[in-house]
Amino acid sequence: MTDAPDRASGLFITFEGGDGSGKSTQAELLTAWLGERGRAVLRTREPGGTDVGHEIREIVLHHRGDITPRAEALLYAADRAHHIATVVRPALDRGEVVIQDRYLDSSVAYQGTGRVLGADEVRKLSLWAAKGLLPDLTVLLDLDEVVARGRLNAARTRYDRLEAEKGEFHARVRAAYLELAAAEPGRFLVVDAAAPVEQIAERIRTRVTAVLG
Amino acid sequence: MTDAPDRASGLFITFEGGDGSGKSTQAELLTAWLGERGRAVLRTREPGGTDVGHEIREIVLHHRGDITPRAEALLYAADRAHHIATVVRPALDRGEVVIQDRYLDSSVAYQGTGRVLGADEVRKLSLWAAKGLLPDLTVLLDLDEVVARGRLNAARTRYDRLEAEKGEFHARVRAAYLELAAAEPGRFLVVDAAAPVEQIAERIRTRVTAVLG
Repeated sequence: MTDAPDRASGLFITFEGGDGSGKSTQAELLTAWLGERGRAVLRTREPGGTDVGHEIREIVLHHRGDITPRAEALLYAADRAHHIATVVRPALDRGEVVIQDRYLDSSVAYQGTGRVLGADEVRKLSLWAAKGLLPDLTVLLDLDEVVARGRLNAARTRYDRLEAEKGEFHARVRAAYLELAAAEPGRFLVVDAAAPVEQIAERIRTRVTAVLG
Repeated sequence: MTDAPDRASGLFITFEGGDGSGKSTQAELLTAWLGERGRAVLRTREPGGTDVGHEIREIVLHHRGDITPRAEALLYAADRAHHIATVVRPALDRGEVVIQDRYLDSSVAYQGTGRVLGADEVRKLSLWAAKGLLPDLTVLLDLDEVVARGRLNAARTRYDRLEAEKGEFHARVRAAYLELAAAEPGRFLVVDAAAPVEQIAERIRTRVTAVLG
């Protein structure tokens, strides 16, 4: 169900990783750096980057728990289809750099890890929605779950069951992300999110410079 | 992207055909007839058979013209996924007869005829949404476009361009429906919608009796 990719003239960069891994900070630093170099940059995010996306998100959030996994996946895919067609592609066609928080790989890592839908199905659906658009570069801010857990352990005396389950889920999402990155090393840049902010930013700039060639 | 069909114990009957072909009338007659024979019947429709579906429909109608064809197809598929999973399958699992106005074949005939999306893509998307659920019987109320046009011609002096285009579109939808029916003769019953109501009802009852057999 995947269309032939319809390549655009700009540059499409996505940021991936768990909540709190520093995606926004790094996206902002990269946006500023590219701006200083005279590049037009569009920053956007999924889900919810358009008015239609906002309404779709309202449905998902309002009905959470009642919506079946397939319906939810299709609603997110609809948001993606609309966002890519009306926001991202036009910017790429104008030659801009598009920097986006979360895209295809979030869907695969999170929905695929939920184990109700297969990762391959989620990927196919997303690519159909986006007419096959893949990022030129995907920055994965990899956060070591054990390190994160260790920090939390130091501050608190004990975990309850819910927190333990949450930790296990995030560990599975992290593993899924790393698997995606290993499968497409040319597209992914994996950085240790526990490193100093400026050190991470420098690694990202080096890679972006290479991609801009 | 199609799952293995997950067959249910009830009977799933869909009515297809253009607007004004008599789908509602025949669905009502069949519902009454089955009820007299002691069968539990659920009548439903797409789109909009659930509260989530209602909200999805609001988005599509409110934003019509701004929503991209893929996003619209995905929204309808989300409605279908939710409706089939929460309304149709539970009824089939209870052993009921589900009689539904419009389903998969409407999506393929109308969206496929719009020529932006391929009929095969629309079918795959719909079947993924519905986890492969196909009707046991699909009644196609076939309305001869030339006959319908002839009647209208007799009542009016001339057509404007929009009406001519509409006529051409409906002729293409009709052709798409007939093609679907020809490809799956075991599932479809094609009846001439211009025939007397009771004669059509009798043909449908004969076929339903055979399927229930």
